[in-house]
Amino acid sequence: MGRTTRTTKPAPRARVRLAVDDRRRQLLALGLRAFGEHPYDEVSTQAIAAEAGISHGLLFHYFPSKHDFYVAVLQIAADELLAGVVPREGTPAERLVAGLHAYFEFVERRAVAYGTLLRAGVGSDPVAKELVDGTRERILMQMRADVEPLVGDRVEQRIVRAALRGYIGYVEALALDWIDHRDLTREELVALCVRALEASLPPALDGMLP
Amino acid sequence: MGRTTRTTKPAPRARVRLAVDDRRRQLLALGLRAFGEHPYDEVSTQAIAAEAGISHGLLFHYFPSKHDFYVAVLQIAADELLAGVVPREGTPAERLVAGLHAYFEFVERRAVAYGTLLRAGVGSDPVAKELVDGTRERILMQMRADVEPLVGDRVEQRIVRAALRGYIGYVEALALDWIDHRDLTREELVALCVRALEASLPPALDGMLP
Repeated sequence: MGRTTRTTKPAPRARVRLAVDDRRRQLLALGLRAFGEHPYDEVSTQAIAAEAGISHGLLFHYFPSKHDFYVAVLQIAADELLAGVVPREGTPAERLVAGLHAYFEFVERRAVAYGTLLRAGVGSDPVAKELVDGTRERILMQMRADVEPLVGDRVEQRIVRAALRGYIGYVEALALDWIDHRDLTREELVALCVRALEASLPPALDGMLP
Repeated sequence: MGRTTRTTKPAPRARVRLAVDDRRRQLLALGLRAFGEHPYDEVSTQAIAAEAGISHGLLFHYFPSKHDFYVAVLQIAADELLAGVVPREGTPAERLVAGLHAYFEFVERRAVAYGTLLRAGVGSDPVAKELVDGTRERILMQMRADVEPLVGDRVEQRIVRAALRGYIGYVEALALDWIDHRDLTREELVALCVRALEASLPPALDGMLP
């Protein structure tokens, strides 16, 4: 009997663990939409708990505070952005264009959160600021890894680094302009960025870009 | 006698008013250096008052609080930046290059303050944020006024606006990279920016830039 209990118990426990992960994923998905579409102060964890069909208290079992929840959501969003922007397949030029499409698609989907994060809205939130800076740094590192072998010794690496940093500033500013005006197509946004990158590193990329 | 008093009194009052203006200018100059070289929290108004040869209390006669002093200093810095970046003489191309030199010269001189303001350091300070955004907007307006007549109807104005906004993001990101690494000359910085702008608006500026 004692033995039977021991061998049968793992199944329910396993199901409970799975449910916990599912619940967490569900809450993060709801959080992604809420924080993507509304400013932090306007997001109600109570409304999110209700939407998930759980008590407000249970939400805080998964995330100790609203800010912890927010940071977990930001981390998911950063992973989502990086997965799209840093594609693993294709030539460097194909990866660049695919990455730009993914970037602006992300900006459209998460416009409010993107705008808040990039518009100095995280000055008072060091965790969020570190996440934004870290994500930008990872994109820059990946671009340098792609571009530097193509450049070889035709352009000094300090110039490549500075130009790519400037280029990322171009993409971010263009995204913020799009959020304000929404009057450029994604193709137009990508085309402007491709030209800006071409100009940043001309000897390296002549003929490489579409 | 009464008449003599009345006619002679304005002179001393005028001198006192002049001294007040001089003192204010002196305090702002000391503040520009202090806030330009050190983070806000490390700037001591007591030290600035001592340097000016006045009591700490008298400084607060000119600026009611440290934050008011900071905002007045930022306003002076913004005016200084705009005066250099938006030169009034020369062809558009000459103004552009002169403006870029002035911009990076300003960044060198006010590196700490520039870095803090542009790196989302003002998220918790709406007054400072508004000043930074307003200064960027004035630079953008001036550039649009310069560029749009040259572009004519070859590029739609929404594209000109978006590309110039992206370009300003490029310049700002390059300036922040320079603050971190300081391994590009001013000529290299300006050359990268000129190429980025050329790429942003090709049909308009072909042959216009140096």
